[in-house]
Amino acid sequence: MVQHTVTSYDEELKGLASKVAEMGGIAESMVSNSVTSLVKLDSELAQKTIQADKRLDQLQAELEEQAVLIIARRQPVAQDLREIVAAMRISNDLERVGDLAKNIAKRVVAIDGGMSPKRFALGVEHMSELALQQLKSVLDAYAERDAEAAENVRIHDDEVDAIYTSIFRELLTYMMEDPRQISICAHLLFCAKNIERIGDHATNVAENVTYMVTGRQPQDERPKVDETGFLDGENA
Amino acid sequence: MVQHTVTSYDEELKGLASKVAEMGGIAESMVSNSVTSLVKLDSELAQKTIQADKRLDQLQAELEEQAVLIIARRQPVAQDLREIVAAMRISNDLERVGDLAKNIAKRVVAIDGGMSPKRFALGVEHMSELALQQLKSVLDAYAERDAEAAENVRIHDDEVDAIYTSIFRELLTYMMEDPRQISICAHLLFCAKNIERIGDHATNVAENVTYMVTGRQPQDERPKVDETGFLDGENA
Repeated sequence: MVQHTVTSYDEELKGLASKVAEMGGIAESMVSNSVTSLVKLDSELAQKTIQADKRLDQLQAELEEQAVLIIARRQPVAQDLREIVAAMRISNDLERVGDLAKNIAKRVVAIDGGMSPKRFALGVEHMSELALQQLKSVLDAYAERDAEAAENVRIHDDEVDAIYTSIFRELLTYMMEDPRQISICAHLLFCAKNIERIGDHATNVAENVTYMVTGRQPQDERPKVDETGFLDGENA
Repeated sequence: MVQHTVTSYDEELKGLASKVAEMGGIAESMVSNSVTSLVKLDSELAQKTIQADKRLDQLQAELEEQAVLIIARRQPVAQDLREIVAAMRISNDLERVGDLAKNIAKRVVAIDGGMSPKRFALGVEHMSELALQQLKSVLDAYAERDAEAAENVRIHDDEVDAIYTSIFRELLTYMMEDPRQISICAHLLFCAKNIERIGDHATNVAENVTYMVTGRQPQDERPKVDETGFLDGENA
């Protein structure tokens, strides 16, 4: 980063970065807790996850306000401006990750009292571990300003997508086998879709880390978002 | 709006607003076209909808860049700052509406060749008309700087949510009646969910219009996002 004569400017920029880091920590634990609460049908943990989302929303609003103030006051250019814009965009993605985790946690309330999702949720659990790993890696890449690590996250998004496609098919098979499983599997379909989208947001964050560090957007198109939209096979 | 001595500042602000209006027009027609392409299994229209999303993404990137430049150059306060921040937030919501419409259009490719969704899609079609009406009303409210009209959109979001809940149940019933309908109904479940979320984004836009015009965020909490997350009945 460029050295500034006014120390408090650096502190302002660091303040944004530490707010992103705090949001990242909350988003990570929300994703982890939401899936644990789903698999164990733990409604207390689900409620805790739903509550945590408020803090995330509040942090995003604060970050946006601070970012706008810094831009107006400091008229930043180049690297500093990219840093501020990236923080705004990344906080936006993290807030969306929180929404998706909250939505998974809300389904625990709907599933609770019905049959255990354990048998059907193995794939969702595995998928969430991978998405969470992507999220952790990209937040590390942000903290370290490491464009290479960010690019590594970006190119691995298709793994989460591939698992989603396989889970989609698997859940449809369970539904066809036994109509009593249709409701629980429909909820799990949405959970799987949410985790796939959490992976997409990790990819967005990766692109913004690259932009922040190098000033360039990644060249090639991102991997496709939802493979199931193009699968004729599953309609057979 | 406050009169500015430098005319080009006003022009810059108007430029942002007209970009939001352009994005709104594209988002509206994408929502309408995506649902038409779904109901009629019109893959040409679906492709057109998928293509339109690129323009929306591009407009959002341009708007963000212009907004940051204006903040840095003009150091706006009060009403002007709110106008710029609102334009950034609203363009973000409209870009998400485009993503959701694109996702619906993509499912046409998956469903095509299978059975016609017409019989099952009536509810989805009705729901989309309501969501589209919300979107149109809120874009008018933005153009007219009409906080009352915006509030009117915000308090009617629960109607879209209520239809979603009823469609969720209906589609699950179709699935239970005939396993051959499971795949198509699973796709329609996602389409219905996407439309519900389009309604949520219209509500977000409404909140930002209120903020822009009055400087206040709406007081009471927004209606709940997904009723099905709390319905025990559908797991019976």
